[in-house]
Amino acid sequence: MRMYDIILKKRRGLELTTAEIDFFIDGYTKDEIPDYQVSALLMAIFFQGFTEREIGDLTMAMAESGEQTDLKSIPGIKVDKHSTGGVGDKTTLILGPLVAAAGVPVAKMSGRGLGHTGGTIDKLEAIPGFRVALDNAAFIEQVNRVKIAVVAQTGNLAPADKKLYALRDVTATVDSIPLIAASVMSKKIAAGADAIVLDVKVGSGAFMKKSEDAFNLARTMVDIGTRVGRKTVALVTDMDQPLGYAIGNALEVKEAIATLKGQGPKDLHELCMHLGSEMLVLAGVDKDTAKARERLEKIIFEGQALEKFKEFIVAQGGDPEVCSKEGLLPPAEIIYPVSSLEEGYVTEIDAEQIGLAAMSLGAGRATKDAAIDLSVGLVLKKKIGEGIGKGEIIAELHAAKGQELLGAEDMVRNAYTIGHNKPAVREIVLGRV
Amino acid sequence: MRMYDIILKKRRGLELTTAEIDFFIDGYTKDEIPDYQVSALLMAIFFQGFTEREIGDLTMAMAESGEQTDLKSIPGIKVDKHSTGGVGDKTTLILGPLVAAAGVPVAKMSGRGLGHTGGTIDKLEAIPGFRVALDNAAFIEQVNRVKIAVVAQTGNLAPADKKLYALRDVTATVDSIPLIAASVMSKKIAAGADAIVLDVKVGSGAFMKKSEDAFNLARTMVDIGTRVGRKTVALVTDMDQPLGYAIGNALEVKEAIATLKGQGPKDLHELCMHLGSEMLVLAGVDKDTAKARERLEKIIFEGQALEKFKEFIVAQGGDPEVCSKEGLLPPAEIIYPVSSLEEGYVTEIDAEQIGLAAMSLGAGRATKDAAIDLSVGLVLKKKIGEGIGKGEIIAELHAAKGQELLGAEDMVRNAYTIGHNKPAVREIVLGRV
Repeated sequence: MRMYDIILKKRRGLELTTAEIDFFIDGYTKDEIPDYQVSALLMAIFFQGFTEREIGDLTMAMAESGEQTDLKSIPGIKVDKHSTGGVGDKTTLILGPLVAAAGVPVAKMSGRGLGHTGGTIDKLEAIPGFRVALDNAAFIEQVNRVKIAVVAQTGNLAPADKKLYALRDVTATVDSIPLIAASVMSKKIAAGADAIVLDVKVGSGAFMKKSEDAFNLARTMVDIGTRVGRKTVALVTDMDQPLGYAIGNALEVKEAIATLKGQGPKDLHELCMHLGSEMLVLAGVDKDTAKARERLEKIIFEGQALEKFKEFIVAQGGDPEVCSKEGLLPPAEIIYPVSSLEEGYVTEIDAEQIGLAAMSLGAGRATKDAAIDLSVGLVLKKKIGEGIGKGEIIAELHAAKGQELLGAEDMVRNAYTIGHNKPAVREIVLGRV
Repeated sequence: MRMYDIILKKRRGLELTTAEIDFFIDGYTKDEIPDYQVSALLMAIFFQGFTEREIGDLTMAMAESGEQTDLKSIPGIKVDKHSTGGVGDKTTLILGPLVAAAGVPVAKMSGRGLGHTGGTIDKLEAIPGFRVALDNAAFIEQVNRVKIAVVAQTGNLAPADKKLYALRDVTATVDSIPLIAASVMSKKIAAGADAIVLDVKVGSGAFMKKSEDAFNLARTMVDIGTRVGRKTVALVTDMDQPLGYAIGNALEVKEAIATLKGQGPKDLHELCMHLGSEMLVLAGVDKDTAKARERLEKIIFEGQALEKFKEFIVAQGGDPEVCSKEGLLPPAEIIYPVSSLEEGYVTEIDAEQIGLAAMSLGAGRATKDAAIDLSVGLVLKKKIGEGIGKGEIIAELHAAKGQELLGAEDMVRNAYTIGHNKPAVREIVLGRV
């Protein structure tokens, strides 16, 4: 078998066999196939597409390209949740304790990631004393005892995906739905998920800007899951404005705690209820999402969600007092209000711009080794549909250095569109696949 | 400017600017842009195409990527000829002396090349004493004195093309008409051609199997020439069977000499008359191809073509006696007749198969450093349209080792299709662009 023939075959629009896909992924993982042949194949896939069968094969080949987490010693159905990423997305911090409190084992490995803010692991590190490194035995033991553990991803999970992603990133082949879908699913499968709930974001702050693309991606991932024997559900959700109000690591932890207390932003609460209900149904806890939702609302209302979060923090060495004393989370040096220059209704918020403003304050990293400031970020005061007066505060910047404020202030102001008419109410969940 | 953005732009089907094409070629030549980005761009070009303007820019960027031959000290219009390659193509050996005898300066740099037989340079080396290495001053002096010099290509002509071609060869992006056209034209321009006559082959023994593709390629190359100020004419010619009868280095020299004497195969003579006439018109020797053809026929008939060939051989240290004593060319050890198992008319000859048979006898090289045997090859005895009896000889194998014969015999027999009905006569020149 030769890589040349595989490229030519795909270039001509023919379907690759399972053996051909295995040959390509195996050879690339072992550095036996050079980058320049792989990038040519990726571009050919971009144009000619991949059948559902090919995508499933690619997913499994990548999942099996390195270590695979063995979660068999944790009883029950392990349901993982994945979000395609957006601005202000702190759902994992909430969903973890929430579904764990309902009895679903949460054994989550998470990355630090690049972007507007840190990843879940960075956010958890805002909690004083919280340890994100656990060895495998301790990880499993904690899940069995507390029902939840979240650790920084170590080991060599889906190395083929890592290598392919890095290549796609520099060859303009990232935005191919088959490749995105296989990438996400391969990591979830390698991480040991029995069932997967996907949160596919669409809108100005998401990778997918168009609803059609988001639904395509959602369908493709659900199809992969079904093919490879993992029950998978996807929700397509709104990312035309940031999720909740807080963007920034410590700030998001604070908002997550409020949400676990039942005092969170409406959109964030609503999304967590939807995603959590799907997780409970896949885990076999409830027969349908209506029942699951009732259960989750009750868990929050009765304080069990917050209790589980505290238990989880304690198990990983953190200080559970953060849940009542916000001051224990790292505070920013400067809090600076951004006021509106106009009056009317907020009709749009460019989520991408808000994310970039948070990043300019130091909340995220642009490269793998960049420093991150857990204290900084911003808190929106107005979201789409809310009325605003001239001079009224639209957002608060949390910054470490004064010189970063002016740029961020402009970015935030520019991200807001103020109009005369109150826009229609939008739903957070746009569809289910 | 970033290569990433250039790939993305082309992937989206947009036209690249001259500056973007220059950036890409310059960066790639200097090893500043990696292979994996270039192969992704090549695949995007394969799918999205290149406009005529982009192809012209690519051609000039590649032509200017290294040294350029300066032929200014040779008076007159330097007309180069290029063939896209076929089986039994020895036209350069004939056209060089022929048009030189008509007063057109022939300053030709030629490669050794890979393929079924060697290149022009290898073929000339079959002549005892012939030197293919001349320094630049001697080369120019000889062209001015004898009107013809043919030397092995040295120096760093169009290095970007060389690098790109090697990459295309391993990433299944060779057969893109814009890339083929720019590759051919960039080399001709870097080699100093003022005007170019192209012989675009089509058929079983050519790179282009379909007439439509050959005409597309021809039109694309003529358009490039026009854009960059080089008068260019292309003939699309038949390669559905080998050209002439001889395939193999010394064997082809012999056939070229016969043709220069007016005793060559009809198709080869005809093709040389067509190509040569175009060259004479572009060089300004004649006003139209009809007049030019008359002149060329006369030059052959009166022996001036053969005389010029001898003069050329002498100038480069070779023995002109090969023109009358065939035995001076290296003879093969074994000459083996292949007889027909059927009777009827030759209706098809798979030129590719005949070429591979010659190569299996040692006439060509598969890799750059492979050895080549100038004495071996094969001579067809029957071409399309000729009648043949059972047991009659269809071809003669010229071999060095007996064990190669059986394989080659099968290949030659399989290449022939013998039918009951005499096929229609076909023209060697299928069209002119």
